[in-house]
Amino acid sequence: MNASEVLRRLGEGRPLVHHLTNYVTVNLVANATLATGALPVMANAIEEVEEMVATASALVINMGTLDGTWVEAMILAGKEANRRGIPVVLDPVGAGATRFRTETSEKLLSEISFAAMCGNAGEVSTLAGLAAEVRGVESIGGDAREAVEKAARSLGTTVAATGEVDYVCDGERLFAVKNGHPLMGRIVGSGCASTAVVGCFAAAAGDGGVETVAASLSYFGLAGEISAQGASGPGTFEPLLLDALAALAADPDGLDGRLVVEELPLA
Amino acid sequence: MNASEVLRRLGEGRPLVHHLTNYVTVNLVANATLATGALPVMANAIEEVEEMVATASALVINMGTLDGTWVEAMILAGKEANRRGIPVVLDPVGAGATRFRTETSEKLLSEISFAAMCGNAGEVSTLAGLAAEVRGVESIGGDAREAVEKAARSLGTTVAATGEVDYVCDGERLFAVKNGHPLMGRIVGSGCASTAVVGCFAAAAGDGGVETVAASLSYFGLAGEISAQGASGPGTFEPLLLDALAALAADPDGLDGRLVVEELPLA
Amino acid sequence: MNASEVLRRLGEGRPLVHHLTNYVTVNLVANATLATGALPVMANAIEEVEEMVATASALVINMGTLDGTWVEAMILAGKEANRRGIPVVLDPVGAGATRFRTETSEKLLSEISFAAMCGNAGEVSTLAGLAAEVRGVESIGGDAREAVEKAARSLGTTVAATGEVDYVCDGERLFAVKNGHPLMGRIVGSGCASTAVVGCFAAAAGDGGVETVAASLSYFGLAGEISAQGASGPGTFEPLLLDALAALAADPDGLDGRLVVEELPLA
Repeated sequence: MNASEVLRRLGEGRPLVHHLTNYVTVNLVANATLATGALPVMANAIEEVEEMVATASALVINMGTLDGTWVEAMILAGKEANRRGIPVVLDPVGAGATRFRTETSEKLLSEISFAAMCGNAGEVSTLAGLAAEVRGVESIGGDAREAVEKAARSLGTTVAATGEVDYVCDGERLFAVKNGHPLMGRIVGSGCASTAVVGCFAAAAGDGGVETVAASLSYFGLAGEISAQGASGPGTFEPLLLDALAALAADPDGLDGRLVVEELPLA
Repeated sequence: MNASEVLRRLGEGRPLVHHLTNYVTVNLVANATLATGALPVMANAIEEVEEMVATASALVINMGTLDGTWVEAMILAGKEANRRGIPVVLDPVGAGATRFRTETSEKLLSEISFAAMCGNAGEVSTLAGLAAEVRGVESIGGDAREAVEKAARSLGTTVAATGEVDYVCDGERLFAVKNGHPLMGRIVGSGCASTAVVGCFAAAAGDGGVETVAASLSYFGLAGEISAQGASGPGTFEPLLLDALAALAADPDGLDGRLVVEELPLA
Repeated sequence: MNASEVLRRLGEGRPLVHHLTNYVTVNLVANATLATGALPVMANAIEEVEEMVATASALVINMGTLDGTWVEAMILAGKEANRRGIPVVLDPVGAGATRFRTETSEKLLSEISFAAMCGNAGEVSTLAGLAAEVRGVESIGGDAREAVEKAARSLGTTVAATGEVDYVCDGERLFAVKNGHPLMGRIVGSGCASTAVVGCFAAAAGDGGVETVAASLSYFGLAGEISAQGASGPGTFEPLLLDALAALAADPDGLDGRLVVEELPLA
């Protein structure tokens, strides 16, 4: 489904997107979800996480901050989403940085069926079994294109690696998303917010297909380009990014011809 | 007490308002509290929650995100506030969305004496025993006017339902607050922030009387109208909302004639 | 090391700064860290806190919100940082407000060797054994200059008390930092953000020496002066503060002659 069609559906249906996410960027994640046209809900208690996800149209699991109890909630929510056929999107924040994060990513990937996984090049490389350097939650180098291809094949799902160029692959097709702006890397949480937008698109499309994920990231990148024009630095960039997401979502036809997504041959 | 008088008192006394709130909108809640003239403090550890509330002039309990330990802290804090005669305000976020939230709301309402309760139409309807649809933490429909009347009578406290028009009732009098702007519904946490402002007003007034709550919400709504003028979307609206709250609080006389609060007959 | 030299090093090395901080101002803390030129990471799980700090160049412990599990994580992280010779900075938020916070500060100070401690006058006075009033997490009065001298001597580390004028002392030298703007006290988390910047400077300098801490605070205060010029209130001030931190960090020579740091005689 293309981005305009997804945004139209979101505006009409206002689906609920349930986030199990970190306490650092949660506000941006929630506002990005709302600006894109979905309704965000954050609920992580063991007591309610399955009941909440049952009312949602997509679940986004973001490992930005986590502990044992959160991992338990993520698994409960993910399994319930799988039972109900709701798409689940994973952002394996910091996979490769500590054993706990790498092992948690692997545990989630083995127990839950994900519609899509979105991370940076280092995180995706780690989970693809490639050499990678992840410093804290930042990727230092790594070949994103190679990583998404390898990860998509080994994990059997759509995988995106975001960066200067975003790469998206489902093992059969590969896309490069060239929308975006360097200021996106100067705020904390642009990766989390882009994964949240992927969750919104998955809610509308009912899946995390490679074209849907590429469409999400190009919409998000275009919003970054627009907001950068008015920003005087990373601080003013962030509110303008939400304005741009909302403005584009309110006028889906305005996306025509502005999304730069290229299909590439697989290696 | 009218809004100008409350804001004058807040500016002079800088009372402490203790919040047990969610991790999604906590920063906005804290900044809205500070902009209104009170000092926010967030402290949820079982080890200190009673001691902290004993130094505060009001307690705000917001259920936006919660788990068993948080509920325990809420009850400890609420009971201590009751013992000391400090007004307690409840925002039953998501009541009606999951059994855990509905039951937690009911538990809090049965164990703590609240000066006021503020929610959206769906949450208030749920707690009034009326049919309601709550999707995640959003109200979908529901008759706010009927809900506040019924809830105020059954709960024996002041109840507000915020929305396009806010309704406030204490079982004997009913007010409609018509200040506000649609952009308030396009940011995450405007409901939480308006409840925080109710907490500030309750701290200054020493209670959560129906006129005090209506005054809080009209002040908050007026700030929304002002900030909407300069905003280019929801992202830029939020910082301008804090600017407007602070500017109005710094010049309480400037509120004269701008608050639109109407008394309505009870059903 | 002076501020320009530190900022140049940060821009080149992009060191990782690990924060164990509160959920109220964590986003501002992370963005201030990134704007200053370091890479922020937040990781508090017992399972990974030692492994994460081992990859960092500085650790910042902020007590803004805490409970027993967090205190355990803080001690594990602090001890590991000490073993590896990584500077650790403490922000004892709310020390003096509750027994739990005062005792936790004392416990952290006794078990971990800190390169620097930064708080408000009330918190520092409390930990120096002087009379102080701390209401919630706000300092009400207190003699900051006396407090930093006494605390630096008794704790044997660099101590800063931030306020209208910031005072920094290591027991042998005392500095007053006069950069800053009143709007910094009108947003929630400016103290947390300034401590985060001290953590970044400590990461680059490898220590928390008195000149390094004074340089951090003057850089942060200058950013406050610059951002205040464009702000229409506290809401718009915060994003502009991040813009100013980033702009100054990108042009370290631009700091020349704008930092107002005076050495004072010890009492």
